[in-house]
Amino acid sequence: MGANELIDRLRTIVGDGYVITEAAAMEAYSHDETEELSYLPAVVVKPRTAEDISRIMRLCNEHRIPVTPRGAGTGLSGGALPQLGGVLISTERMNSILQIDERNGQVITEPGVITEVLQDSVKERGLFYPPDPASKGSCFIGGNISENSGGPKAVKYGVVKDYVLNLEVVLPTGEIIWTGANVLKNATGYNLTQLVVGSEGTLGIVTKIVLRLIPLPRYDLLMLVPFRSLEKAGEAVAAIFRAGFTPSALELVEVDALRITAEFMNSGIVIPADVEAHLLIEVDGNDQQTLMNDMEAIAALLEDYESGADILFADDATQKAELWKLRRRVNEAVVRSGYTIEEDTVVPRAELPALIRGVKMLGKEYGFHAVCYGHAGDGNLHIRIKKEGSVNSQEDPEMVKGIRALFQLVHGLGGTISGEHGIGLVQKGYLDIVFSDLQLDLMRGIKKVFDPNGILNMGKIFDSNN
Amino acid sequence: MGANELIDRLRTIVGDGYVITEAAAMEAYSHDETEELSYLPAVVVKPRTAEDISRIMRLCNEHRIPVTPRGAGTGLSGGALPQLGGVLISTERMNSILQIDERNGQVITEPGVITEVLQDSVKERGLFYPPDPASKGSCFIGGNISENSGGPKAVKYGVVKDYVLNLEVVLPTGEIIWTGANVLKNATGYNLTQLVVGSEGTLGIVTKIVLRLIPLPRYDLLMLVPFRSLEKAGEAVAAIFRAGFTPSALELVEVDALRITAEFMNSGIVIPADVEAHLLIEVDGNDQQTLMNDMEAIAALLEDYESGADILFADDATQKAELWKLRRRVNEAVVRSGYTIEEDTVVPRAELPALIRGVKMLGKEYGFHAVCYGHAGDGNLHIRIKKEGSVNSQEDPEMVKGIRALFQLVHGLGGTISGEHGIGLVQKGYLDIVFSDLQLDLMRGIKKVFDPNGILNMGKIFDSNN
Repeated sequence: MGANELIDRLRTIVGDGYVITEAAAMEAYSHDETEELSYLPAVVVKPRTAEDISRIMRLCNEHRIPVTPRGAGTGLSGGALPQLGGVLISTERMNSILQIDERNGQVITEPGVITEVLQDSVKERGLFYPPDPASKGSCFIGGNISENSGGPKAVKYGVVKDYVLNLEVVLPTGEIIWTGANVLKNATGYNLTQLVVGSEGTLGIVTKIVLRLIPLPRYDLLMLVPFRSLEKAGEAVAAIFRAGFTPSALELVEVDALRITAEFMNSGIVIPADVEAHLLIEVDGNDQQTLMNDMEAIAALLEDYESGADILFADDATQKAELWKLRRRVNEAVVRSGYTIEEDTVVPRAELPALIRGVKMLGKEYGFHAVCYGHAGDGNLHIRIKKEGSVNSQEDPEMVKGIRALFQLVHGLGGTISGEHGIGLVQKGYLDIVFSDLQLDLMRGIKKVFDPNGILNMGKIFDSNN
Repeated sequence: MGANELIDRLRTIVGDGYVITEAAAMEAYSHDETEELSYLPAVVVKPRTAEDISRIMRLCNEHRIPVTPRGAGTGLSGGALPQLGGVLISTERMNSILQIDERNGQVITEPGVITEVLQDSVKERGLFYPPDPASKGSCFIGGNISENSGGPKAVKYGVVKDYVLNLEVVLPTGEIIWTGANVLKNATGYNLTQLVVGSEGTLGIVTKIVLRLIPLPRYDLLMLVPFRSLEKAGEAVAAIFRAGFTPSALELVEVDALRITAEFMNSGIVIPADVEAHLLIEVDGNDQQTLMNDMEAIAALLEDYESGADILFADDATQKAELWKLRRRVNEAVVRSGYTIEEDTVVPRAELPALIRGVKMLGKEYGFHAVCYGHAGDGNLHIRIKKEGSVNSQEDPEMVKGIRALFQLVHGLGGTISGEHGIGLVQKGYLDIVFSDLQLDLMRGIKKVFDPNGILNMGKIFDSNN
């Protein structure tokens, strides 16, 4: 089928106004937040319904046309990049929250709803959807499903996969299925829901999402605690859990990252010279006095790990917002400072200090600078890398070697190469570090069951071997 | 290969003492807790290691010999029944807890460890593994993984799938793989871990299990609350969550089941004539006063739903144990009273009263008696059925029709046919009610990727179509 015929057929399906072919208008769809990568698709199409997508998929499946699904384009592993050209399907028009079921504590939503909009909508009913990626103000819930996103609250409340009950999915062959049922427990057949969550848009396009919600905790408290030693901060993290506390956030920011961020934000926060890391600790619950007691007990416990005296304790909304803004803008600040390459490592939480030390040593060996921050309670460390002349990790052979050494370190510490950003395009070359051909062949086999003609988001996670 | 040669080869692998062929000695392996079903395998083999199982699987795969994996045999859907004969692999000798990692809050265990033994072992270190199926004193953790078990604590803490980080699995072809990594967050490739959890031993044999653990809550409180109306009890369940409480257990026992159990146990508990249902409500946490306040607030809230005045409040260990014993022995009591057939339905929690009323009506229509109890907070209702002359659900055509009508009711209420017991052998005939051929073909396709020759636990969940 020629390009013109394809475009005509797509216009018939979604309407003229929702098929884009001008390069200038497609530019916004050519990149996500991954390094400096950019690829133009042949055409961008904006369906409104699952039925629209079904018709598009049938067309593309019949003619073996590559399809790339896309949410808001905030991804950090290149999962939404149309590197093969072809048809890019944007879910931006599928942006309705369909039902908030207060009796059962569930929400049914379309994929193009912004995560924070969804969170705020259920919050108005006293309900809570915890997963809160840093991009929550702009990312789509559909993208969160595809990447199995996390965020700071994951340490207490879990990640996206822990909230997804059921998904409506358009298969690569065009059929529309539900993966499960709208129930809290399900032992009925293979867990297709959990298989689709985190599959990075390679097994199907998610068109409706059923999430469980929990009661919204009434109060939270927040403190920022300096540590003289990274190792001690790491030990302190483990000690908090062993003392019986489960904070609702437990973030680590290495002092280099904090300094860059404080400067970038013109924040008045003073960082003493003898500090190596900060922990941002939040507790939440329904009883304020209990939270106060918990915070005091945690602060007292941290003294055994040489926490600094200058604890910043946020007890009103403004102070809390200020501290969270600082944490949430770390990423933007370090990117602006030239740290354009990001790795999303995860290790057993007690191995965090060893990982951070190792990163610094590898930087010296391979000629890069790295700053570290992330979800210490989960052992999920974001490593931002700056290397003279490298903006894309894959174009500099020395950088590739350095990242490979970094992931081998992570694997050696019992970890893996992505905690919440996915593999997508930029990490797939390193997957052999954590998976053998045996495991990859199982994944490729599953992919082929869902997508026999290999048209949907091919070349993401792994290269096909068929 | 002849039977004698097979047995010789198995003896070479595991040693003479661990291969059983005498019918009398195999009888214990011929049934589980599912109805009155019994099938003898050709041979029972008791490996000690994953490598043993790998060698057994290679042998059976080469010669196309059916293999059935088995834990403690406490299953309620027939997943461990060797209905095709062949080789039955018992994991009973793989019963070591390999490592309790306090720093990271993880435990690595073999599959043949009794769930309660595992729970008690980590409890000694102040750690908590919440999933607690009714059979926890005798079931194996490996079986819990295969069935994605739940139990009363699931309402606050989730089910088995929410605790499994990584699995060592012997594939039907004999290879040994790990499904993931020992980390709390993982966005690295398809989630093979979650695919194996709940796959009922059809995709591989789990030989090592890595579970995450959480801090053990210091206190809990328990109360048994009578309700004059089933509907009101159901509404009360939803109201508790909407008021912002997440109980650590929220069990419903219909009065018929409670009466049978109280009688069976010679318990002194008096059940007033005007009561239709009881809720057993537990809260847990680290602050006893907060829990007392929560319990009082919940009790006050329940008055709006016509709760009876005779609340049994358990505030010491003996009273709590007594109430839990009552709940945990419901199953045994009703089985002894002739309710041998069990269905494990799950619906959105607000639909529970409609389900229970519907069950009673279907009983009248199809000539059976039913008693109901289960995990009200999760919408997971166990329905025990007694019908004159029927001990196995599949042998009585009228019973099959009745169960089909029951599952259609469940499906119509937005639910599905198993919440925590699995599909196994006895429910597979009803799977068409909740899944179309499309979904089943995806599952069969996945099965074939893992088990190309169709030798492992075939005929469970679905019939193969190849």
